[in-house]
Amino acid sequence: MEALPKKVIEIAQDINKMKIRGAGKIAQVAVEALKVVAESSNAAVTEDFMAEIKLAAKILLQTRPTAVSLPNGIRYVLWRLMQAKKTIEEVEDLKTCVINVADQFIKNSKVAIQKIGEIGARRVKDGDVILTHCHSSAVIAVIKTAWNQGKKICVNCTETRPLFQGRITARTLGQVGIPVTMIVDSATRHFINKVDKVIVGADAITANGAVVNKIGTSMIALVAHEARTPFFVAAETYKFSPETMMGDSIVLEERDSSEIISSKLLKTMKNVFIRNPSFDVTPAEYVNLIITEKGIIPPQGAVSIIQQEYQWFISNEMDTL
Amino acid sequence: MEALPKKVIEIAQDINKMKIRGAGKIAQVAVEALKVVAESSNAAVTEDFMAEIKLAAKILLQTRPTAVSLPNGIRYVLWRLMQAKKTIEEVEDLKTCVINVADQFIKNSKVAIQKIGEIGARRVKDGDVILTHCHSSAVIAVIKTAWNQGKKICVNCTETRPLFQGRITARTLGQVGIPVTMIVDSATRHFINKVDKVIVGADAITANGAVVNKIGTSMIALVAHEARTPFFVAAETYKFSPETMMGDSIVLEERDSSEIISSKLLKTMKNVFIRNPSFDVTPAEYVNLIITEKGIIPPQGAVSIIQQEYQWFISNEMDTL
Amino acid sequence: MEALPKKVIEIAQDINKMKIRGAGKIAQVAVEALKVVAESSNAAVTEDFMAEIKLAAKILLQTRPTAVSLPNGIRYVLWRLMQAKKTIEEVEDLKTCVINVADQFIKNSKVAIQKIGEIGARRVKDGDVILTHCHSSAVIAVIKTAWNQGKKICVNCTETRPLFQGRITARTLGQVGIPVTMIVDSATRHFINKVDKVIVGADAITANGAVVNKIGTSMIALVAHEARTPFFVAAETYKFSPETMMGDSIVLEERDSSEIISSKLLKTMKNVFIRNPSFDVTPAEYVNLIITEKGIIPPQGAVSIIQQEYQWFISNEMDTL
Amino acid sequence: MEALPKKVIEIAQDINKMKIRGAGKIAQVAVEALKVVAESSNAAVTEDFMAEIKLAAKILLQTRPTAVSLPNGIRYVLWRLMQAKKTIEEVEDLKTCVINVADQFIKNSKVAIQKIGEIGARRVKDGDVILTHCHSSAVIAVIKTAWNQGKKICVNCTETRPLFQGRITARTLGQVGIPVTMIVDSATRHFINKVDKVIVGADAITANGAVVNKIGTSMIALVAHEARTPFFVAAETYKFSPETMMGDSIVLEERDSSEIISSKLLKTMKNVFIRNPSFDVTPAEYVNLIITEKGIIPPQGAVSIIQQEYQWFISNEMDTL
Amino acid sequence: MEALPKKVIEIAQDINKMKIRGAGKIAQVAVEALKVVAESSNAAVTEDFMAEIKLAAKILLQTRPTAVSLPNGIRYVLWRLMQAKKTIEEVEDLKTCVINVADQFIKNSKVAIQKIGEIGARRVKDGDVILTHCHSSAVIAVIKTAWNQGKKICVNCTETRPLFQGRITARTLGQVGIPVTMIVDSATRHFINKVDKVIVGADAITANGAVVNKIGTSMIALVAHEARTPFFVAAETYKFSPETMMGDSIVLEERDSSEIISSKLLKTMKNVFIRNPSFDVTPAEYVNLIITEKGIIPPQGAVSIIQQEYQWFISNEMDTL
Amino acid sequence: MEALPKKVIEIAQDINKMKIRGAGKIAQVAVEALKVVAESSNAAVTEDFMAEIKLAAKILLQTRPTAVSLPNGIRYVLWRLMQAKKTIEEVEDLKTCVINVADQFIKNSKVAIQKIGEIGARRVKDGDVILTHCHSSAVIAVIKTAWNQGKKICVNCTETRPLFQGRITARTLGQVGIPVTMIVDSATRHFINKVDKVIVGADAITANGAVVNKIGTSMIALVAHEARTPFFVAAETYKFSPETMMGDSIVLEERDSSEIISSKLLKTMKNVFIRNPSFDVTPAEYVNLIITEKGIIPPQGAVSIIQQEYQWFISNEMDTL
Repeated sequence: MEALPKKVIEIAQDINKMKIRGAGKIAQVAVEALKVVAESSNAAVTEDFMAEIKLAAKILLQTRPTAVSLPNGIRYVLWRLMQAKKTIEEVEDLKTCVINVADQFIKNSKVAIQKIGEIGARRVKDGDVILTHCHSSAVIAVIKTAWNQGKKICVNCTETRPLFQGRITARTLGQVGIPVTMIVDSATRHFINKVDKVIVGADAITANGAVVNKIGTSMIALVAHEARTPFFVAAETYKFSPETMMGDSIVLEERDSSEIISSKLLKTMKNVFIRNPSFDVTPAEYVNLIITEKGIIPPQGAVSIIQQEYQWFISNEMDTL
Repeated sequence: MEALPKKVIEIAQDINKMKIRGAGKIAQVAVEALKVVAESSNAAVTEDFMAEIKLAAKILLQTRPTAVSLPNGIRYVLWRLMQAKKTIEEVEDLKTCVINVADQFIKNSKVAIQKIGEIGARRVKDGDVILTHCHSSAVIAVIKTAWNQGKKICVNCTETRPLFQGRITARTLGQVGIPVTMIVDSATRHFINKVDKVIVGADAITANGAVVNKIGTSMIALVAHEARTPFFVAAETYKFSPETMMGDSIVLEERDSSEIISSKLLKTMKNVFIRNPSFDVTPAEYVNLIITEKGIIPPQGAVSIIQQEYQWFISNEMDTL
Repeated sequence: MEALPKKVIEIAQDINKMKIRGAGKIAQVAVEALKVVAESSNAAVTEDFMAEIKLAAKILLQTRPTAVSLPNGIRYVLWRLMQAKKTIEEVEDLKTCVINVADQFIKNSKVAIQKIGEIGARRVKDGDVILTHCHSSAVIAVIKTAWNQGKKICVNCTETRPLFQGRITARTLGQVGIPVTMIVDSATRHFINKVDKVIVGADAITANGAVVNKIGTSMIALVAHEARTPFFVAAETYKFSPETMMGDSIVLEERDSSEIISSKLLKTMKNVFIRNPSFDVTPAEYVNLIITEKGIIPPQGAVSIIQQEYQWFISNEMDTL
Repeated sequence: MEALPKKVIEIAQDINKMKIRGAGKIAQVAVEALKVVAESSNAAVTEDFMAEIKLAAKILLQTRPTAVSLPNGIRYVLWRLMQAKKTIEEVEDLKTCVINVADQFIKNSKVAIQKIGEIGARRVKDGDVILTHCHSSAVIAVIKTAWNQGKKICVNCTETRPLFQGRITARTLGQVGIPVTMIVDSATRHFINKVDKVIVGADAITANGAVVNKIGTSMIALVAHEARTPFFVAAETYKFSPETMMGDSIVLEERDSSEIISSKLLKTMKNVFIRNPSFDVTPAEYVNLIITEKGIIPPQGAVSIIQQEYQWFISNEMDTL
Repeated sequence: MEALPKKVIEIAQDINKMKIRGAGKIAQVAVEALKVVAESSNAAVTEDFMAEIKLAAKILLQTRPTAVSLPNGIRYVLWRLMQAKKTIEEVEDLKTCVINVADQFIKNSKVAIQKIGEIGARRVKDGDVILTHCHSSAVIAVIKTAWNQGKKICVNCTETRPLFQGRITARTLGQVGIPVTMIVDSATRHFINKVDKVIVGADAITANGAVVNKIGTSMIALVAHEARTPFFVAAETYKFSPETMMGDSIVLEERDSSEIISSKLLKTMKNVFIRNPSFDVTPAEYVNLIITEKGIIPPQGAVSIIQQEYQWFISNEMDTL
Repeated sequence: MEALPKKVIEIAQDINKMKIRGAGKIAQVAVEALKVVAESSNAAVTEDFMAEIKLAAKILLQTRPTAVSLPNGIRYVLWRLMQAKKTIEEVEDLKTCVINVADQFIKNSKVAIQKIGEIGARRVKDGDVILTHCHSSAVIAVIKTAWNQGKKICVNCTETRPLFQGRITARTLGQVGIPVTMIVDSATRHFINKVDKVIVGADAITANGAVVNKIGTSMIALVAHEARTPFFVAAETYKFSPETMMGDSIVLEERDSSEIISSKLLKTMKNVFIRNPSFDVTPAEYVNLIITEKGIIPPQGAVSIIQQEYQWFISNEMDTL
């Protein structure tokens, strides 16, 4: 079996060193790497070709063990390749299969945000007050699409401690003319009665419909639930985590204390420690629906998406990887 | 009728210009002013004396129309004076009455925080993890008293945006050796399952047991309620608002945007506005109990306290003021 | 002992035959009857006078066994008379006592609606959308008072099946210029998110704060609770039922089927029966506060009102009646 | 391409002018029209045939833009035709395909109510008290089937303002011997504790399991949820709305004020307006299960039904229509 | 000061050694002891008499530090004695005061159960199914009184692990003819929909209305709350704990493992430990009302009872003891 | 058509007489019987073979009409046979199909518990306190697997009245070194705040995600829900009941009174009856997720599993059986 092409190794390293960022980008680049393998393969028999692709898949999977989109991209290609292998006998045809499937995934991934914008915007009504938290491309797409359709909407956004990503959201939406009111995160309940809809993004969605997103999301979901304000999540399907079907929990990253208080100031405070988790988990029962590029689903439909798109559940063939 | 003594006018001005701060301090100083009037009065007949006191009361009440403790202090003295008047006929005896009652109120007020500390500490168990929000003298008293009794407790405190009063709480408690973990406000739900009790202070308590306190308190109360974590409020009885029995709503102050984001930065953001309310309202159903210097009551017991201590309800005599 | 004056018998008959209607009116008239007894009594010794009054009280109580305001009025006078009796020895003084206390009750009762209007209106804000059900003088007073203060409010009212009392409410409020939107009773949940406050009246309030009111009230309370919309009850204190402290349940009247469907039409429907209860019971947990002429209380404060105003609880002396 | 047969145009007009009513009937007639097109087509090549069918589909879809069952019927045929087209090359075979699939849909649709009756009746126990709202053929089928199985059941039905459809339900069930108790809509909560099950129909079911039905349904669902009384929906699968997966909201019709109050009477009421929505939306969390002709599903299973029966989600081929 | 009479010491020892059992009995006997002190006192001046009584009180209080009824009885007498002392100057008069007040307390206490039976029975309707847990004299009184009034009721009772007190309840009620259905404790939720009311006793009631009772009570309360089944507590007022107003928590006794599993069997099970708490705490929000011998109150009214009957709150004079 | 082989009859009798126990075992043995039929069949044409298999299936289905796993096993084989029949024409090939499919089912079934152990253990964290009820092999597998992975966990288990199966659980887990605390069933709420996860087994899972399990399970689920403690169910997919999709309710067995109280003792208690249901029903909303051997799903995903594994829903072909 031949060595993997140099470009694949480079891509793996870029992902590992976090030169490539964003769930969509990471998945696209990893799938691109599989395509490179296919294009440059010199395999003479199908077994060799399969082995090359699987090796590349393994290496790519190891670059970011906690990512959700990356294994989804890899799995998308591999599963379709394995199905094709059952009836295809020529190496060249398998190559074509990988290239086509990779292109298809990349294309779908690239237009996912735009599609979410279109689908989600249909749920926004003229005059709506929308509250959001942190900064999400999918949410921005929904709001901007609705605004561009001429709907006169207002946005409430939290500042989103500790890193103030809410300011990016505010600036981005304000720039196109949308009136934005920014509040501290803990003021959400005070304002919720005047909000028509909450829309947030997601970092990952688990098998039982729980939503992993920026710290504070679950409190906002609870507040919306208490006030019967609809709570929507906008997320690409490659954010759905098949591993959680097999029992894995999403790892919730904890970041440096200096994001919350300067180290210098902290040193002056005896016996004071900082906890700084980046994410929390919103249970499915507080989520009214999830807007994906494939359509709107209830959070309990996550398991269907995972099966249909990423084939983890209905087969154990993938386990052999 | 004679003019009010100069000192009373000075006190009124000091309260008005916010030279005197803190709910307890304001009430004490206002009551002190009534005592000054009594001490320096030259009234020959009781009617004149009553008129002087009532005039002073009126002036003092106007200095801070939205304060809660100030009218409570005034009313405490006036009611007892009016009752005494029914059987007393000598001016000197009425003077003595005002002086004694004033002294009594001031003394009670001064020891209130310490008493709350003692009563509340009985509810704290060895090993408890206590979460608090913002900075409250009453809460500090409860926690420190429990710590000094040798109970090994930990504290979680929010940073409390926008003004970071949580840092003062953290520093104060850390200094005496209590381990404190500080988190961003919106991380409360993420940590609540490891918390044994939430204890917060109050700026005002209404007739139907709602608690007015620092913005974010009601979200924390909701989060505690969801997780069945007991939620306690520590508050002196002069924080109970008789006016709310007559239908008044507590005025919720809204402060400057620069507390949240610098004016310079805000100017660069088109169509972005700031809302910065200082307080929110926690409904009685999320409050397990209120720790007062008179003992522990359920929030629905607020109306009893108001009647018993400040006599608004059972009589309309006060309306004639 | 002499026979009761003719006028008392007439009053008793008028109450019994429902010539006198309205909780307030009934109580006033019954108390008036006691006053008549006092004024026309020829009793020479206090025992005789007491016996006369108690006899009149008994007769009056039997006229409408399920009314709430009637025994409250009687009890108000009797209790104060029994207290007075302990120190008074002259029949004339006891007469004066009954007359004065009766006048006091009647006066208070007459201004109760107006006072509720004033207190409740303080809770209404400019721009509020208020939903009400059925027709209540106390609610009308609150809304009109707020409107007359220049607050630009809107009202949603249900039509209130089966007797369409909502139309009276709509007409009454519309007449003074308030914009009223009328809906079918079952549409309340559909509109609740645009409602700022629900305010309803009460036929009776029980010892544990439950509210007896027009059928449908408890569903609206539930809907408001679900949406976190404040739910207020406006009720005079003579609607508070002391009997419920002693275990009695409020009797919920069931009325004729013809209010719902004409008898002629019903006859054409085989095996179809009608149930037509006039009232239902709203539990205290769905009631944010009760607006009384004495001030605002939480529903759990009902028991305090009953004790304080009608003395059932703290004494068994009344049982001897 | 030839013109569409005259009969198809007639059918389209009949649907548009509401000569054809009932969700099932509309879908059946529309599918019948596609069958007519196939039967009368003179197309020589498959492309022409496809074009004819698609044209007919477009015209039929435009007749009632807010109907749910109509596009479901059309889509059912089209999707199967498009799949067949992949392997079939003769126009005659495509015709046969359309005719068979149309017959299959119509047959399924016709027996759907009966099947729902059979499946639902298994959930009804001897002695059950069942509450229903408005008038639904599917609910009638469930109740009658259970009754015919010898189960001694009682029914509570609301009168269902404003149009009193509850009377039709009462009459229909009473006629076969079932004891029916009719109440005003707002009395539901008063009686719910004696009810064993609530069963209602549906006008449409959305992707996330929300149920669109007669105004008042969502209040009854809330009341049942509060009392832990099971709440069932009986609905044919062609009531499931695929469009809602793409973000569309169900349009909630608002009807004339004269249904609620006569125009003459309304004119006498100044500043009084009527709102008369025909439907409301019951969230999935208040629905225990949905009885379809395909079996019982949880409301969150709606998205599966939509995919499986009407193929919107898993393919974008339909979008090209 | 003289030694305490021998009988007082004996009573103290009997209480301490648990020869006297039952909350009512303990309180009565302790109060009896104070009466003995008064009767046998040789004190010449009032100060001496007061000292004797206070000494007896102290000794009695120490016999059972966790009891609730005992300090209530003592406090009842002491408070009234201290009030009397303000105007009484003769030792004999103080003696009489103690004797009278003690008699009054004992009499009230003895008839408390019967009064609760009468008041509570008014809440029971013909045909009711009542569920109870463990064995409570107050509950037995309510049920028997209702039965004796001719109400045809049924009772569901739990067996009440670990000591099967439910069997005593079943036997006692069955004996008078009431049909009793006994179930395992954990079957409560399965049967709750057929239950009309839950009525349980209490070991103690805290300042904020929480109910301390036999382990399992709080689960049954939760189950009743979920199903909207009314949950009543029947308890004498001397079960209300004034100490909890001052922050004390009720001590929840934990008993021997052999009540759950024989020591012999347990020894054969490695690493298996037993926890056997006798009581749990039911929060006020799951309690609809409390039936006391003074009348029915909401749980939040506990604080009023404590103040009114046992005077802890309104005065600090008691602290000096 | 030939008679069924003797062994099949024996198996049917063994199942019927409950010689074979355990959901997994029953299903395996029934499927084994179908394999025996295939192996010993002398059918010459496929129709005969199909008839033999169907006859055997019918007989086996009748042996235990209320079992869930048995029809699932039968259906698993039959469905795959019927699909194969469409393209296979040789009897021998159909035999092979039945044998292979039967082996596959039996193998999957045998490793199901182990797989559940592996998947479930990933959800258990070091330091977790896990509460369980009754005795479930799947739960034991999850806990033991986690323990063997070196996670330091503790277990709380109920004693599980009436048959004390909790003792088996306690002994089994204690034996491998896991510290187990056993409590009475009704103490669950008292301890729930110190529990990190509840994991229970299931006897059956219905189409809408409800869980049928040992009496008491639904109370524990409610208690966990109240305290926001995650509630997991561990169940093999053959516990999912397809019949419930067709409207059938799971039959809840009721067992002998002597399990609760000895007949001798019961005889001494007049008018006392015992109800002893073995199972109760936990609604889907209290279940966070279900751990199956196919992966983790939300309870609402039950219907997907039923369709996918046991094909009831998507076809009516099975009905012809």
